[in-house]
Amino acid sequence: MSLVELRTAVLAKNDDLAAALRADLTAAGTTAVNLLSSPGSGKTALLEHLLARCVERGIPVAALTGDLATENDAKRLARSGAPVRQVVTDGLCHLEADLVRDHLDGWLPAGTRLLFVENVGNLVCPASYDLGESLRIVLASVTEGEDKPEKYPTAYRWADLVVVTKVDLAAACAFDEQAFLDSVTGVHPGIEVIATSARTGQGVDALLERVLPADL
Amino acid sequence: MSLVELRTAVLAKNDDLAAALRADLTAAGTTAVNLLSSPGSGKTALLEHLLARCVERGIPVAALTGDLATENDAKRLARSGAPVRQVVTDGLCHLEADLVRDHLDGWLPAGTRLLFVENVGNLVCPASYDLGESLRIVLASVTEGEDKPEKYPTAYRWADLVVVTKVDLAAACAFDEQAFLDSVTGVHPGIEVIATSARTGQGVDALLERVLPADL
Repeated sequence: MSLVELRTAVLAKNDDLAAALRADLTAAGTTAVNLLSSPGSGKTALLEHLLARCVERGIPVAALTGDLATENDAKRLARSGAPVRQVVTDGLCHLEADLVRDHLDGWLPAGTRLLFVENVGNLVCPASYDLGESLRIVLASVTEGEDKPEKYPTAYRWADLVVVTKVDLAAACAFDEQAFLDSVTGVHPGIEVIATSARTGQGVDALLERVLPADL
Repeated sequence: MSLVELRTAVLAKNDDLAAALRADLTAAGTTAVNLLSSPGSGKTALLEHLLARCVERGIPVAALTGDLATENDAKRLARSGAPVRQVVTDGLCHLEADLVRDHLDGWLPAGTRLLFVENVGNLVCPASYDLGESLRIVLASVTEGEDKPEKYPTAYRWADLVVVTKVDLAAACAFDEQAFLDSVTGVHPGIEVIATSARTGQGVDALLERVLPADL
């Protein structure tokens, strides 16, 4: 079997496992959200806000956070008071559906309505792996420039929502919002874009409303 | 053959091809520099400066630049006047030694003394692939936070030099330089760190002196 054939088989198996996980989560009333971005684009900082607001509002929320190494992110996120679990991939460049299921089994509190899955910081490989989510968000920091959508098309093509982060730094970075939106539209016409700042709190409520199940 | 065994075989074959490429480049008097970082950390912006200064000084320089999609970076870099070639990987998340050799064959001008190879923006997978370089640089933008070295240890462990980018934004990002240096030291004690800004030009000359062959 060639590397391409093996990779195709791995992805097909992951798709099956992800579909089964999505069915199980949906049956349990849990909406899973997959957060995907470059390293350092601010996934964890934004998630700190989202978890804290859910806890304040009494919404049963939880988070899995993936990294190659360290438990840094789980420690940061746990300060929100929400249940948080680190997935250390030990070198694997992305999360996979079976890894997510293994970490949820026996840990995810019954009645959890919203589950955030923070992927490994990598704008390439995670884009090919369905994790059983109902919503996939790709995050882009204004500090990364405007042309990332067209340079990393798979990440943008398969996302349901684009979240721009660190917009408080937009002027300092001379971020050209229209150029970014044009790049997004070039690979995924019509996809919704929400601008946020973890520092100022801008856009956090709008994002939370977008990801919450309709009855909450 | 399992995926792990196949991956080990692929990496071993790449190591052999890279060693042969390094020997050929060295024999031809060419020093290759592999630039590795997250998407949007400023590899291309820094490289624009480095190429322009080499051209000004009459140093025979060239650049290969890797991306999943688009020729954007080659177009930007070609404005320096140096020979530049885009490697479109069409989804492959990293460059490999045979891909580099294929793109150099029949293109790299005879007498090139310094060859920059800008990897795909990805702090994970490219770290495992030797490209025949004599110097490997990992770049870290101040906007990405301080703990990336410990979270992406392979990229830092196998680098010869750390280049901090966008230091003009350090204050705006509340970048904690000491925390970053501690994180670097945790995974690669003693590695040299150079602070740069493509916007102000800070550190560009120091970086160029570091990468130039000793007789230039």
